[in-house]
Amino acid sequence: MSDYERILAARERLAGRIHRTPVLHSRSLDEAAGAEVFCKAENLQRGGAFKIRGAMNRLLQLSPAERQRGVVAFSSGNHAQAVALAARELGLRATLVMPHDAPRLKLAAVRAFGGQVLLYDRAEQSREALAADLVEREGRVLVPPFDDPEIIAGQGTAALELLEEVPDLDALVAPVGGGGLISGCALAAHAHHPKLDVYGVEPATAADVQLSLRLGRITAITDNPTIADGLRTQQPGQLTFAIMQRHLRAIVTVSDDELLAAVRLLLLRMKTLVEPSGAAGVAALLAGRLPRVRRLGVILSGGNMDPAALAAALTPA
Amino acid sequence: MSDYERILAARERLAGRIHRTPVLHSRSLDEAAGAEVFCKAENLQRGGAFKIRGAMNRLLQLSPAERQRGVVAFSSGNHAQAVALAARELGLRATLVMPHDAPRLKLAAVRAFGGQVLLYDRAEQSREALAADLVEREGRVLVPPFDDPEIIAGQGTAALELLEEVPDLDALVAPVGGGGLISGCALAAHAHHPKLDVYGVEPATAADVQLSLRLGRITAITDNPTIADGLRTQQPGQLTFAIMQRHLRAIVTVSDDELLAAVRLLLLRMKTLVEPSGAAGVAALLAGRLPRVRRLGVILSGGNMDPAALAAALTPA
Repeated sequence: MSDYERILAARERLAGRIHRTPVLHSRSLDEAAGAEVFCKAENLQRGGAFKIRGAMNRLLQLSPAERQRGVVAFSSGNHAQAVALAARELGLRATLVMPHDAPRLKLAAVRAFGGQVLLYDRAEQSREALAADLVEREGRVLVPPFDDPEIIAGQGTAALELLEEVPDLDALVAPVGGGGLISGCALAAHAHHPKLDVYGVEPATAADVQLSLRLGRITAITDNPTIADGLRTQQPGQLTFAIMQRHLRAIVTVSDDELLAAVRLLLLRMKTLVEPSGAAGVAALLAGRLPRVRRLGVILSGGNMDPAALAAALTPA
Repeated sequence: MSDYERILAARERLAGRIHRTPVLHSRSLDEAAGAEVFCKAENLQRGGAFKIRGAMNRLLQLSPAERQRGVVAFSSGNHAQAVALAARELGLRATLVMPHDAPRLKLAAVRAFGGQVLLYDRAEQSREALAADLVEREGRVLVPPFDDPEIIAGQGTAALELLEEVPDLDALVAPVGGGGLISGCALAAHAHHPKLDVYGVEPATAADVQLSLRLGRITAITDNPTIADGLRTQQPGQLTFAIMQRHLRAIVTVSDDELLAAVRLLLLRMKTLVEPSGAAGVAALLAGRLPRVRRLGVILSGGNMDPAALAAALTPA
């Protein structure tokens, strides 16, 4: 099965289980950006982020025996929420390994979806080891956050939908954490338009993918402070790195202030709540980090933001 | 021309000039409300509110001589913004008479649209007199905020679109200021479904329409403090009162706290920014003020909220 066939199969599998999110368009944003901008609003997706696409696609392919034993995942937030939500809908047990400093809203949402939360300390514990332990002791199936062909294919359905609705894009931009979203989207986009330019955006302080691509090998950045908690991944995956090497035009970076300016514009002008990680594409656009194009597709990847963090973002320093 | 024909004509006239706003649907809201709720997202309308529908419909019918002389309007905000925006697009001069304590964002937006702002003091000056003076001295055309058949017809196109998309609603609810929106929407709704229940929502401290309907005559409430600045109108219009008498099932009221709870739910769960006035329908629903129905249409009438007010709404007292 080709990568593209896998994405088409994911789309069939997900139909009716997730939202087909709208493509938002705003004259304010077009004027600010000097381009026609088409925003795929994954902040309006079930669970508040694109992550349900990959998680649901993976869980729908578990064997009856695997479903019996349940799943485990580690995540700073949106992936955990997605796995908890997908597991609840399919009647599976789910344990989510989450950092103790994860946004409170995300912890609460995972619990509200019936997920069992296992907190760990970023500085002292390995989430991979905690998850591996559950796999070994209870036979749980690990649902990786990004480095899995079915997760990548699921995320790619976002770009598939965007390109169906707006076929004549000149470029596509998406946030980059571990690379699952951008990899799936690039595969979907290049199946339609082999020449479409695909750009990834990372926080300047967590630009492990940019560094890895420059060095030509997977390289970790362990100290990666940023308000974009969804993009703090320390290094790309094996699969996602290889796809990004082949399919990305470039990775550009943005500062936390630029992310917050994008959050404010999206909220106050476009009236849509996008979390800092999810606003990375718009931040890069407004900061002038992307080459000028006529028609740009942007993935707004999520909208789960703590009320206190949002209030702070709206209050002048 | 019947009321309904006037709405259909407005729809033709407005096509391509305003957004056909999406109908938002969220499982979170459905679960919180115990009903299927379809939100017509006029907060995503051009100018950030439904008001452009009526204003543009009115301005498109000016004679060449009237266009030459320009327009004037008085408004606490969203109507002023809509008139300024419509006037700019049609190349007319527009003066907007606005209270000096109007939300800063709304004043700034009117100016950004090229409107000339004339500030007045709510306590000491009459906005009607200030506007009348401009009509007399400069021959400007007054664009009333609600009590005009073409304004009412324009606003009604919001319900027309909602019912085209979701034809089998059991009830419809919308915020009530001067009654332009609810009147137009009730006329549109009852042309399709004569038995559909239409409810209006007012702030408990600015319930002039509820009082007027009870007393059977237009009655003013002059002291009407509420965070819902768009619903502070002191009394209904002649036309809107007559329509509301015939077409509304009831007016229900909500407190400022209930409005803010609705703003928070819409923002944090549905990821869409709705100002307190615009959230009145959802507030009434969540507060249990509406009879239980299976499928409810709600007009989210606007999304223009000052960042500082929004930050305060997100911060626990």
